[in-house]
Amino acid sequence: MPAPLLALSPRLRSTPYSAQVEASGVKAYTVYNHMVLPSVFRSLEEDYWHLRAHVQLWDVACERQVDLRGPDAARLLQLMTPRDLGRVQIGQCVYCPLLDEAGGMINDPVVLKLAEDHFWLSIASSDVLLWAKGLALGHGFDVAVSEPDVSPLAVQGPKAETLMARVFGDAVGDIRFFRFERLGFQGRSLVVARSGWSKQGGFEIYLDDSRLGGALWQALWDAGQDLEVGPGCPNLIERIEGGLLSYGSDMTRDNNPFECGLERYCRLDGADFIGKAALLRLSESGPLRQIRGLRIAGAPLSSCRDFWRVEGQGEGEGAFAGQVSSLTWSPRLKTNIALAMIERDHWQPGTALAVVLPDGSRRDATVCELPFADPAD
Amino acid sequence: MPAPLLALSPRLRSTPYSAQVEASGVKAYTVYNHMVLPSVFRSLEEDYWHLRAHVQLWDVACERQVDLRGPDAARLLQLMTPRDLGRVQIGQCVYCPLLDEAGGMINDPVVLKLAEDHFWLSIASSDVLLWAKGLALGHGFDVAVSEPDVSPLAVQGPKAETLMARVFGDAVGDIRFFRFERLGFQGRSLVVARSGWSKQGGFEIYLDDSRLGGALWQALWDAGQDLEVGPGCPNLIERIEGGLLSYGSDMTRDNNPFECGLERYCRLDGADFIGKAALLRLSESGPLRQIRGLRIAGAPLSSCRDFWRVEGQGEGEGAFAGQVSSLTWSPRLKTNIALAMIERDHWQPGTALAVVLPDGSRRDATVCELPFADPAD
Repeated sequence: MPAPLLALSPRLRSTPYSAQVEASGVKAYTVYNHMVLPSVFRSLEEDYWHLRAHVQLWDVACERQVDLRGPDAARLLQLMTPRDLGRVQIGQCVYCPLLDEAGGMINDPVVLKLAEDHFWLSIASSDVLLWAKGLALGHGFDVAVSEPDVSPLAVQGPKAETLMARVFGDAVGDIRFFRFERLGFQGRSLVVARSGWSKQGGFEIYLDDSRLGGALWQALWDAGQDLEVGPGCPNLIERIEGGLLSYGSDMTRDNNPFECGLERYCRLDGADFIGKAALLRLSESGPLRQIRGLRIAGAPLSSCRDFWRVEGQGEGEGAFAGQVSSLTWSPRLKTNIALAMIERDHWQPGTALAVVLPDGSRRDATVCELPFADPAD
Repeated sequence: MPAPLLALSPRLRSTPYSAQVEASGVKAYTVYNHMVLPSVFRSLEEDYWHLRAHVQLWDVACERQVDLRGPDAARLLQLMTPRDLGRVQIGQCVYCPLLDEAGGMINDPVVLKLAEDHFWLSIASSDVLLWAKGLALGHGFDVAVSEPDVSPLAVQGPKAETLMARVFGDAVGDIRFFRFERLGFQGRSLVVARSGWSKQGGFEIYLDDSRLGGALWQALWDAGQDLEVGPGCPNLIERIEGGLLSYGSDMTRDNNPFECGLERYCRLDGADFIGKAALLRLSESGPLRQIRGLRIAGAPLSSCRDFWRVEGQGEGEGAFAGQVSSLTWSPRLKTNIALAMIERDHWQPGTALAVVLPDGSRRDATVCELPFADPAD
C-alpha cells in the first residue's frame, strides 16, 4: 500500500517548533509521548549525510520531562532505577533504565539532577508520569510529580558547538558530555546539556517556555546560515550505525536490561529498587537473548514496520533465532544493517542466520557487535 | 503543508487486522496506545454515510486491555475511579473515569467485569497499565496487572446485529447494551459486548488470540457482502454529532470530570478513591468551564489539528471564552460543529462567541447542548 497519512488532532500534540518544522518541509512524522516527532525531511539518506557534515535543529519536544520535586524525590527516583544515583551531582545527566517488578524495561530516560530534591526525567515514549505518580501515591511519598512546560530542541552535528556559541556564547564550550549548564536566552535561563540522540555530537536545549519556541529556532537558524544549518531529526541510519536503541522497538517491557546490554547501569548490591529481586534471579542464569547487530545481505531494504523473524542456518536451520526490531540500508557500510534481539545459541558474532522478510523470502545475515561503525570513520 | 506521512515502525504496533485494513484501502492512521488506529478509508464523509446506512468492521485493537486479576483487583479498581462499583455484575461493561490525586482525568475506560476478582479496563490512549502497576506496588496490593493479547474488533452500524448473528448465532440478539457474553468462534470463546464508539449501534469482539485476527475479519467480511459491509473506524463527524468525547483532545489531565460533564459517574459519599478530596472541593465551587457544543458559521472546515481559541462577542468581545478541541463539517446539519471547553461566563446555550482560526480570522459561533443531533434523525 502507499505510505499512510498521519491524521493530526490535538490528541497528537504539536510542539513549540511545529510551525518552523513544517515550513522546513517535514515529510513524515512519528508519534512519541502523545506528540509529533519529525522522522524525515528530504530523505533518510540526504538527512543522514547532512547530519554528518553540518548541523541540524531537531524538534525533540516529545522528549517530555517528568518533574520530580520534593523531600522524597531522590528516594522515589532511586526506587525506579537499578542505577546507583548516590554520587550523581547537580548538573549531571544520567542514563537510567526504569524497570517494573519483573525487571521489564518501562522506559530509559536521561535524568537531569537540577537540585538535591529536584529531577527531570527526559523520557522515551511511555507514560512515566503515571508510573511515578502511582508509586508516589501508593507509597505515600512527599513528592510532586508533574509534566512541566519544557520542550527540548536538539542541535546536532559536527558544527553544533560553533552554532551554539554564536547564540549562547562561548560558555557552551565548557559544558562537558552529559553535563548541563544554565545559559541565557531572551532573558530566560535555559538548561543546556551536551547530549543528544546521535553520535555526531551536540547539545539539547531544554526550553521551559513554549512561547519562545519560534524565537529559539529562528535565532539558531539565522546564526547558522553559513554553517548550512538544516532541519533534522533522529536519523534511522545514523542511530542504527551507532547502536542507539529505541524504546518500544529494540526493547520493550518484555525485555530486561541484561537483554538490552544495559547491565553496566544495574547495581545489584546497593540500594533497593523495583525489579531488584527479578534482576538478582536473572543475573544467575544470565540472559537468554541479547541485542546484537545484524548485517543482512542483498539489495537495499528501507526499514521494517514490524518485527521480522530471524532463523538459524546450517544445523539449526529454520529454528527461531530472534527478531529484527530496527533496520536500514547503510550507505557508508554498503550493506543492510539491523538491530535484533538474538537468542543465546545464535548470538556469537560471526554466526550465520537468516532474516524472514514480510513477503516470506529469506536473506542471509551475520551477527556482529554494536556499534556497527565508529561515527568518525 | 501537504498532510504528513506516518513513519511506521515496530514502536507503533500494528494489529491482528492490519493486513486486511491496509488491503481495504486505509488512507490515514492515528496512533493510539502505541498502536495504529485507522482514521479514514474513502473520505470522512463517505465513511460517515456508510456507517449510518450499513455495517462496518473497525480495527480498534488499540483499545488495549489492562487486566487486573487477584484478591485485591476490585479494591485497586475502586481506588482508581469515582464511579461506585459496588453493584456491578459479572458480564457488565461500565464507563469509568480514572482520576489523579488532583481530580484530573487520567483515562476513561470501559471496564468489563469478568469475575469478582478479574477486570479488563478497555482504555483510551494513556498508559493505565503503568498507573495501575505503580499504585498496586506502592500499596502492596495482591493483584496482577498485565496487558493481555486482546484486540477488540468493533462491528458498528444499523446492520451490525444482522451480520453478527450470521457469524456468532442468534445469541447476539440477547446481549443487552453494555453487557457482554462469551460466544464461540473457531473453537475459542470470545467476549462479545454490545458497545462501541458510535451512536449507530453495534458490538465489540474482544479477540484474545492475535493469530485469529485474519480469520475473524474475513468471516465477518464474507458474511456481510449482501449487507454492504465495509471497512471503517471511529468517524470524526459521527462522534462529534453524537457528543462522544475523545480523551487527549476533548479532555485531558488538566480537566476534572465535572468539566467533562461526567458528574453522574462520580459518587462523592461512598468508597474512597484517588482524587476524592479534590472532587469534594471542586463540587463546592462548581466547575469553572465545561464541555459544550459549538455551531460555527461559514464555509466547511475539515478538522482542527490544535486547540482553537474561543472568544467572547459583544460586551465580552475578545475575552478568552474557551477552546475548541474537536471540529468538523456536519453534512446532515449543514454547519460546522465543534466540541469546546467553554468558560462559565460564556457557556449558556445560545451564547454568541467567536472562534479564532489558525490564520487569525474569526468565525461566529453559538453555544449549544450536546449531543448535536439524535443519531436516528
